[in-house]
Amino acid sequence: MIEDKNPQRTPLSELGEFGLIEHLTKEVSLKHKSTIKGIGDDAAVLSFDSKKTVVSTDMLIEGVHFDLSYVPLKHLGYKAVMVNLSDIYAMNATASHITVSIAVSNRFPVEALEELYEGIYTAAKIYDIDVIGGDTTSSTTGLIISVTAIGHADEDEIVYRSGAKENDLLVVTGDLGGAYLGLQVLEREKEVYKVNPSVQPDLDKYTYLIERQLKPEARKDIMLLLQKLEVKPTSMIDISDGLSSEVLHLCKSSSVGVNLYEEKIPLDPTVISTCEEFSLNSTTVALSGGEDYELLFTIAQEDYPKIKANPNFTVIGHMLDQKSGNALVTRANERIELKAQGWNPIQNDN
Amino acid sequence: MIEDKNPQRTPLSELGEFGLIEHLTKEVSLKHKSTIKGIGDDAAVLSFDSKKTVVSTDMLIEGVHFDLSYVPLKHLGYKAVMVNLSDIYAMNATASHITVSIAVSNRFPVEALEELYEGIYTAAKIYDIDVIGGDTTSSTTGLIISVTAIGHADEDEIVYRSGAKENDLLVVTGDLGGAYLGLQVLEREKEVYKVNPSVQPDLDKYTYLIERQLKPEARKDIMLLLQKLEVKPTSMIDISDGLSSEVLHLCKSSSVGVNLYEEKIPLDPTVISTCEEFSLNSTTVALSGGEDYELLFTIAQEDYPKIKANPNFTVIGHMLDQKSGNALVTRANERIELKAQGWNPIQNDN
Repeated sequence: MIEDKNPQRTPLSELGEFGLIEHLTKEVSLKHKSTIKGIGDDAAVLSFDSKKTVVSTDMLIEGVHFDLSYVPLKHLGYKAVMVNLSDIYAMNATASHITVSIAVSNRFPVEALEELYEGIYTAAKIYDIDVIGGDTTSSTTGLIISVTAIGHADEDEIVYRSGAKENDLLVVTGDLGGAYLGLQVLEREKEVYKVNPSVQPDLDKYTYLIERQLKPEARKDIMLLLQKLEVKPTSMIDISDGLSSEVLHLCKSSSVGVNLYEEKIPLDPTVISTCEEFSLNSTTVALSGGEDYELLFTIAQEDYPKIKANPNFTVIGHMLDQKSGNALVTRANERIELKAQGWNPIQNDN
Repeated sequence: MIEDKNPQRTPLSELGEFGLIEHLTKEVSLKHKSTIKGIGDDAAVLSFDSKKTVVSTDMLIEGVHFDLSYVPLKHLGYKAVMVNLSDIYAMNATASHITVSIAVSNRFPVEALEELYEGIYTAAKIYDIDVIGGDTTSSTTGLIISVTAIGHADEDEIVYRSGAKENDLLVVTGDLGGAYLGLQVLEREKEVYKVNPSVQPDLDKYTYLIERQLKPEARKDIMLLLQKLEVKPTSMIDISDGLSSEVLHLCKSSSVGVNLYEEKIPLDPTVISTCEEFSLNSTTVALSGGEDYELLFTIAQEDYPKIKANPNFTVIGHMLDQKSGNALVTRANERIELKAQGWNPIQNDN
């Protein structure tokens, strides 16, 4: 479906032992004064002075997290960075550094890795991140990408999952379900292509969904926006596995219950129309779809006036005492137990 | 060859989505006051005050870096930690935290991962490391382990690869070549076992070599020892890919040349006898074998009296000006060019 636009194929072996990593990292420029030493020694050295160091790591595996038959390598590199930055932003911290480890089989030519790194460097540039290290090795089969993101924050700025209080409002950024539907569209086109490779798909009307899937953006903007609005969330998490799963994480960590209102869940019009086309329930898609990389947070009730006019935020519920349980309040005003049904059979913990 | 001593096999799916990571991390205890938040949020939070943060990452892939037919999972977990701590110690820094990401296929039961983590936690306990996060996911085939190690140091304590000066002495800790020979012994036994599974191998005389391969120890002790001796190396690196490769890294980073004396390279008697048995040249094994996880460093000549009586250290050469080149001085007093022939076809950078 996605053609290889670069017909040149240089075998990995041609660059030799240390050539590959030198080749892939030659463009790295370090911008942060906190980066004392980046790539090229046994370890990187960072200086955060009185700030706290914030660390998160995620691994993406071919055949589990991505399918290279429709995911361009450049987008994959970009997304691998986003997935990790999102975790740092979910701590209300500034992401500043990443390490990138990749394992590749010999079926990948050097040019494929160049594309992957182009995506990584593009993300680093846009999000103001220094690439400070990593590991490049062979794999016996597919492509594996492991990114560790490092950030920093003043201790009193950091927002954990555990600070939500009874009566706090539950707020989500952006809209939900798009990334999952983008995946459904791409999977369907892959099947069509298998049957008839000459069919040119018309994916225009799904542009938003496909972009949400292939090129998600981490919400770096939210921290600054909340600072400007003088709101500090009481708890926060990013939405990687689906809204229900993340709401339950906040509830469990904070020892509170929740009423989540189905009618309040923000959905893009394309999500609604595509759900109809695929005979999917849009609430289920938003609750369980995952990969939206929006932020979910709670705020004290008195902060509501500060955020209510802002199009980035939707209040979708409020926190209860723990014994009231975790519930979805449906459009029919029924209160049903909220359950996690994330997409990933084994789960990341941070 | 190595029997599964635990006949119980619980499928990964039985623990459910978040059950596995909770199960594997339930024993984690945090000991460092620098760990403000460990596992259980979007990211870990660390406090290093005025110290610099030191970060390194490495990935181990089944079929490339290890063969589970003779590597017990517990040892693998231990080694995965050592490989990473070694990089932090090579900066003359204190390792204090790790994140551990693993990808596993369904062929691994929960008990196998418990063994792997037992090795990880044992290493963390012995080396005084807090396990602060990670990611657990599925793989389509084998086992992948990605560890990021984090440490700290005062800025003026940190030793880079780049500080070696002409006339500095080149010093190595411990002895070399053992880990590579241990691998040769294990590979040979695997072949014997394939032909006749009833043969019980007598590996007693190779104990040292097999231990060097399966359960290496990172040289945490060296930093303290050097402090006690009041020696600050001018440059340092750990020996993961073989002595020659690491010597060349120091020379390149420091813009110096080297005379490395073949007769000075420290070899354990078992290495010498086993090289004879395998018809291998012991110098080649030490130069190119890799995985010894010893430290290689340079010191100013005036520091020589401080280290000369210490059995942990062997002076194996001295640095030259860059245009004199990088040479191995053989036992026959011939000066031949030093070349890198590490074992790994694609190479890690830090």
